Amino acid sequence: MAKVFLKRNRKKRLKQGHPWVFQSEIERVEGDARPGDIVEIVNHSGHFLAKGSFNPNSQIAVRVWTYNPQEEIDKLFFEKRVREAWEYRRRLLEDTNACRLIYGEADFLPGVVVDKFADVLVIQILSLGMEVRREQLIQALVKVMEPKGIYERSDVPVRELEGLEQRTGPVWGETPGEVEIVENGLRYVVDIVEGQKTGFFFDQRENRAAIAPLMTGWGAGHGIALQPTEEVDEQGKIVFRPVDRRGKIIKNPFWDGADVLECFSHTGSFALNACKHGARKVTCLDISELAIETAKRNVTMNGFLHRVQFVVANAFDYLREQVRLGSQWDVVILDPPAFAKTKGAVEGACRGYKDINLNGMKLVRDGGFLVTASCSYHMKPELFREVIQDAAMDAKKILRLVHWSGAGKDHPEILGVEEGHYLKFAIFEVRSRA
Amino acid sequence: MAKVFLKRNRKKRLKQGHPWVFQSEIERVEGDARPGDIVEIVNHSGHFLAKGSFNPNSQIAVRVWTYNPQEEIDKLFFEKRVREAWEYRRRLLEDTNACRLIYGEADFLPGVVVDKFADVLVIQILSLGMEVRREQLIQALVKVMEPKGIYERSDVPVRELEGLEQRTGPVWGETPGEVEIVENGLRYVVDIVEGQKTGFFFDQRENRAAIAPLMTGWGAGHGIALQPTEEVDEQGKIVFRPVDRRGKIIKNPFWDGADVLECFSHTGSFALNACKHGARKVTCLDISELAIETAKRNVTMNGFLHRVQFVVANAFDYLREQVRLGSQWDVVILDPPAFAKTKGAVEGACRGYKDINLNGMKLVRDGGFLVTASCSYHMKPELFREVIQDAAMDAKKILRLVHWSGAGKDHPEILGVEEGHYLKFAIFEVRSRA
Repeated sequence: MAKVFLKRNRKKRLKQGHPWVFQSEIERVEGDARPGDIVEIVNHSGHFLAKGSFNPNSQIAVRVWTYNPQEEIDKLFFEKRVREAWEYRRRLLEDTNACRLIYGEADFLPGVVVDKFADVLVIQILSLGMEVRREQLIQALVKVMEPKGIYERSDVPVRELEGLEQRTGPVWGETPGEVEIVENGLRYVVDIVEGQKTGFFFDQRENRAAIAPLMTGWGAGHGIALQPTEEVDEQGKIVFRPVDRRGKIIKNPFWDGADVLECFSHTGSFALNACKHGARKVTCLDISELAIETAKRNVTMNGFLHRVQFVVANAFDYLREQVRLGSQWDVVILDPPAFAKTKGAVEGACRGYKDINLNGMKLVRDGGFLVTASCSYHMKPELFREVIQDAAMDAKKILRLVHWSGAGKDHPEILGVEEGHYLKFAIFEVRSRA
Repeated sequence: MAKVFLKRNRKKRLKQGHPWVFQSEIERVEGDARPGDIVEIVNHSGHFLAKGSFNPNSQIAVRVWTYNPQEEIDKLFFEKRVREAWEYRRRLLEDTNACRLIYGEADFLPGVVVDKFADVLVIQILSLGMEVRREQLIQALVKVMEPKGIYERSDVPVRELEGLEQRTGPVWGETPGEVEIVENGLRYVVDIVEGQKTGFFFDQRENRAAIAPLMTGWGAGHGIALQPTEEVDEQGKIVFRPVDRRGKIIKNPFWDGADVLECFSHTGSFALNACKHGARKVTCLDISELAIETAKRNVTMNGFLHRVQFVVANAFDYLREQVRLGSQWDVVILDPPAFAKTKGAVEGACRGYKDINLNGMKLVRDGGFLVTASCSYHMKPELFREVIQDAAMDAKKILRLVHWSGAGKDHPEILGVEEGHYLKFAIFEVRSRA
C-alpha cells in the first residue's frame, strides 16, 4: 500500500478528527498510488495516522476511511459502517421511516450521502474513493437495510471537483418515482427522481417539531391554552379545556390556534407541523409554483387544506408589502435556501437575511414568535445572531431567544470539522421596544 | 421624574435590548433622583429611551423596567409581568409543578429571581430598584400565583454591589423547610432554606431529559434496543422486544440498560433521569457528603436505590484513578459547578475542564457517550468546544456531537444580553482514534 507523507507542520488537524488531507499538506507519496486507491497517511517520520482514499486530481487529496491500521476497506467494512449508521438513527430518532441514513464523513463513509425514504434508499456519491467502491456500498446497503429499491441522485456539480461526471438513475430493485414517507407523524410525497437534492430535507426534523408549543394559546387576549380540569371523561381521562390568562375556563370552547406565515415553504413542512399542533390558519409562501404544488399536495394528504392558503411570490417583496399593509401574524417562519454559497457572498447574504428578518419580525404580533433559519455554512452562528440583532434594533423590537439549535440528529457532526456546522435555527419571542 | 442623560457615543447597546446603563455611560442627571427611584433614560439630546430604576451606588447605575413611556411601575405592572412570565412557562414547559418563574431582566423584572417549588415560591432580590418595590412584587406573586407560601433567599454576596445586606426567611404564608417537587416526572425533595442558591437548579431540565436515548440499547454486542414487533398484547398495543444489531429478537429478554457514571451529582438529577430511562447501574459521585445524602434520598424516593451506588470523592482524583484501573462506562456525565467565576479564572478553568473531560472520555466504552456541561459564563461556547477538542486529541478519540444546547426554556435569554448565555451542554459519541 502506498504511503502519503504529510509535511511536518501540517498534521494536527487530522489528529483533531478532521478527515481530509489537502494537496498542500502532502510532502511526498511513496509507492504506486492510483486515483481511488486506499493509501496509508503517515506523518513526516512515517508514523501511521490513518488510511484513506487517494485522489491526486482533487484539492482533497486523501479522505480518511479508518484510523485503525488493521481495518481493511472491504465488504465487512461497508456492512459494519452501514449497520452502525442505522443503529445511530434508531437510537436517536423517534421515527426512522425516513431519515438521512449516512452523512458521509460524519458516518465514517467519506463522500456519500444515503437518504432513506420508507423502503427506498437514495444515494449520492461525492468522492472518487466512494465511486470506485460503489458496488460494495450498494451490496452493504442491500444486506443491512433490505430496501425495496435504491436510486442514485449523483447529479451535483461538486462531483466535478473529484473528476466525476454526474449520474442519476435506478441502481437496484424497484424504485418508484414518488415515495410516501412519514416524518413527525406527517405524510409527505417525495419525488426522488426530480426533487431538490435527494428529494427532501431531513435536517430540520426536530426544528419543525420545536414549533409545537407556539401553535396554540392565541386569540382573545392571548394566553389561551388547554389546561387539565377536574372533570374526567368516559374513558377516565382528565378533560382539558381552554382557559384564559387568569386560569378561568372559557365557556365558548373554540380552538384558539395561531395565525402562521411560512416563507420559503418548499415542501410545506413547517406548515404541516403547524397544522398538526393546532395552527388556525397558515399562509404558505414560495416563489416556485412547483414547490407550492408539492406543498399543496402534502397539505391535502394530511387533511389540512381548509386551514392553509398558498401564495406564489417572492418572499422579499411579499414581506415588505405586508409590512406596508400592516398585516400581523402570531408566528412568522423563515426557512430560506442558502443565501451565502461562497465566502465572498457573505456580505450580500447578510443584507438578505437582515431584510427578511427585519420585515418578518415587524409582521409578528406583540408577544408572538419569529422562527428563523440559515443553512449557509459561510454564515457563522455569531454573525447570524448579529444580523438578527441588527434587524431587531432597526425594527425596535426586543427578542427573547426561546430555542436555538442546528441540524437534526441524523446529521451528526464530528467535533473539529467546521464544515458540518452549517444549519442555524432559532425561535425568538418578539416584543415591541417602542 | 428625573432624567438620566446618556453620553452621545454610548446609546446603541440599550437599543440593542441590553437593559443596563453603566455609570460610565451617564453624561448628567437632571432633577432629583434618590436611590431606587424610577428615572427616565434619555439620549444626549433628551430623546426618551426607557424608564429604569436608579442606583448611584452601583456600577449598574440604571436598570431598565420598561421601554414604554406611558407604562407606570405600579401594582398592575407587577401583576402583568408576573402573569406574562407564568404564561411563558406554561406555554413552553411540559410540566410547571416546579420551574424558574421569573428570571430577572430576561422577564423584564430587573434584579429578581423567583423559583416555583410546587406551591411554594422562593424569591431572591438582587437590585436596589426591586428591593424598594419588594412589597409590590410579593403582592403580585400572591395574586397571580396563589402560592401556599413565599420564602426569601436573598443570601448572595452580589447584593453588596447594590448596597444591600443579605436576608433570608419566610415572607408570606406557610413555608415548610422542605418541599417535594416533580421535574421530568421525577420526585425531588428541595431544601428551600439551606439548599444551594434557591434550592434546585432548573436550568438543566431539558438537558436531563435529553440523555433518555442513551440509556438503553447496550450490552451484548451493543446496539440492543426495544423495537416494535408484529405481536399485539391484550390491550391491542404493539409489543416491543429487544432486538440485536441485525434486527433479530433476543430470546432472553433481559433489559439492557446503560452503565452510567455521574460526576458532580449534587441532587442526583442526572442519575434519576438515567434510571427513569432504563439505566442498569449508575455511579453517583460528589465531593460533598451532604449532596450525596440528598441524592440518595431522591434516588430512594423514586425507587431506584438498587440501581445506584454512591461515592463521596473528588471527581478529578476519582476519574484519574478509574482511568488507571481501566474502568469503562457506557455513558459518563460531567456537570461540574462553575470553574471560572471571573474572567481571570478562565485559564485555570480550561485546565480543569480539560482534565475532567479528558479522563471522562477515556472512561467511555468505544461507541458510548460523554455528557458534558459548563455553567461558567466566562467560559465561552467556542472555548469550551476547543477545550473538549483538545482533550479528544490527547485522548485519541473522535467525538461526534449528538446534542448541543444551553439553559432550559424557563431561563429565557434576551438577544444582545451576553450575560444570559452562560450554560453549555453537549452530548458526544466517543470513538477511539487509535
